[in-house]
Amino acid sequence: MKNLKIFCDTFLGEAPLKMLREGVAPHELIFPAQMVNSPLAKSGPDPAFAEADIAFGQPDLANIYQSKRLKWAHISSAGFTRYDTAEFRAFVAKHDIAVTNSTTVYAEACAEHVFAFMLAQARHLPESLKARHANGTADWLRLRHSSPLLKHQRVVILGFGGIAIRLLEMLRPFHMNVVAYRRKARGDEGIPVITARELPDALAEADHVINILPANADSENFIAAERLQQMKPGAVFYNIGRGTTVNQEDLAAALRSGHLGAAWLDVTEPEPLPLGHPLLNLPNCYITPHVAGGHQGEPETIVGHFLENFRRFVDEAPLLDRIM
Amino acid sequence: MKNLKIFCDTFLGEAPLKMLREGVAPHELIFPAQMVNSPLAKSGPDPAFAEADIAFGQPDLANIYQSKRLKWAHISSAGFTRYDTAEFRAFVAKHDIAVTNSTTVYAEACAEHVFAFMLAQARHLPESLKARHANGTADWLRLRHSSPLLKHQRVVILGFGGIAIRLLEMLRPFHMNVVAYRRKARGDEGIPVITARELPDALAEADHVINILPANADSENFIAAERLQQMKPGAVFYNIGRGTTVNQEDLAAALRSGHLGAAWLDVTEPEPLPLGHPLLNLPNCYITPHVAGGHQGEPETIVGHFLENFRRFVDEAPLLDRIM
Repeated sequence: MKNLKIFCDTFLGEAPLKMLREGVAPHELIFPAQMVNSPLAKSGPDPAFAEADIAFGQPDLANIYQSKRLKWAHISSAGFTRYDTAEFRAFVAKHDIAVTNSTTVYAEACAEHVFAFMLAQARHLPESLKARHANGTADWLRLRHSSPLLKHQRVVILGFGGIAIRLLEMLRPFHMNVVAYRRKARGDEGIPVITARELPDALAEADHVINILPANADSENFIAAERLQQMKPGAVFYNIGRGTTVNQEDLAAALRSGHLGAAWLDVTEPEPLPLGHPLLNLPNCYITPHVAGGHQGEPETIVGHFLENFRRFVDEAPLLDRIM
Repeated sequence: MKNLKIFCDTFLGEAPLKMLREGVAPHELIFPAQMVNSPLAKSGPDPAFAEADIAFGQPDLANIYQSKRLKWAHISSAGFTRYDTAEFRAFVAKHDIAVTNSTTVYAEACAEHVFAFMLAQARHLPESLKARHANGTADWLRLRHSSPLLKHQRVVILGFGGIAIRLLEMLRPFHMNVVAYRRKARGDEGIPVITARELPDALAEADHVINILPANADSENFIAAERLQQMKPGAVFYNIGRGTTVNQEDLAAALRSGHLGAAWLDVTEPEPLPLGHPLLNLPNCYITPHVAGGHQGEPETIVGHFLENFRRFVDEAPLLDRIM
């Protein structure tokens, strides 16, 4: 195979960059004038892109549309909202450009994060870490008896992909009743998959509603007043997908009224929420700053995943996490 | 079988008491003048005890020693420190009194609680729930990259009983390397069991040290300066056993120096710790007020467990959670 040029627009740090350089050798890395420092950031167009056979990071759309050489774009995030358009899909199909993302990189950490949310809520950690109730007092008994066991509770997962698959494995020892909402069931999910028509009944029974939906035209405001009202009183809502999938005013209202027991959000719109935002001041709303996918060694995991796919690309083997 | 009298000294609330009364009928419940309102409280002697064939709750030691009728004592807690003496064991053996506890009642909630601790620590929830770092900033990247994945980490469990068994099931999807310290291995633990001699090496490698030891003469101050120093720098210590098993001054020193990454404690000595206690003011020490075993429906679970054992007692079948 001829010498390939890999355009990398994401700042990785010294050791991961060395790992990337050595991993692709004798093929060549090329860089833009300006690097982005987060898998959530958007890079701008750069003339060096025109030389690239492969793009790794957050490639600029205009760069891709103008490229005469690009054969494969590997997106360093799990989300790929700005690429998820009919126009882009048609373009890459026409020009035979493979598109992969990094779902696998973040699935373990994301599943752990939402599971940490579930257990912290179930065990009332935010309250009990502050409490100093003496054994046997009324306050102590109330706190002790306020924690529902996860065992046999009901869960609805919105969005079925790599994170949901891993989360299901983590939930297995708890013998929970889990269903997933997915636009199209494939039949290999291992749990019942429901469609929009069946969702109201499922929401009405669920103790936990876990939103892992990606951001796209279909998912915008997916969780708004109507679906929130369909949820069982006291249900807990989790979001580790994208903030735009939730109508935050409606969510705040459902939390304020006490209809929802609590919300645990790793994503919001915008990020971070401006000070004074209603969700920031609700005692039953818990927010982490889009860190669900983060983990020790994350840059190395990102590079390792790219290199595995690079090996496959060179060998003309099927790519991991191919989305287009 | 003749009509049995069951002495119940624990305040249960109306519905669980009805469940108990109906469950033992036509046998009879008898009560002391003063009920205790927690499975952690100690009841005093009461003359009604002399009539009892069975004791359910936290029976008074003097009452038991004086009884001419007692055949079975069912302790409503998992801990049984005040019964765990050579004198008491000899007495019940001589008088053919069965002693059971309620380990099974609390195992699910206790395992969930310590697992919630592990995940909250792994995902840095206390810090990230307060943070509003913007995506891509140095603070955000540091927080994102600070969370170790549980997968393949090392765990030492101190004390192997019902809670450890359930915790092991919950940890299985994380493929962690788990060993347990137990005074005597039985061979059916399903994981390597180590003795005191092998403990230093295991502590030196463990990312998580989970203390579930009961309080007795052997376990007092089990975790003190020497064993804390043996732990790997940055290790996290959890205690859901009993507070007396830990030298709290030594623990505070290990947390203050940064040798230990963090401690998560559901039990302390005393409970609650007095205001101003060093452990209360350490930012890497997280304390819940002895609620690990608590759960919704706990009184019903306690009664249900007793009733299952009562059925076995009447049928002369082996009792659950028999400890003597």
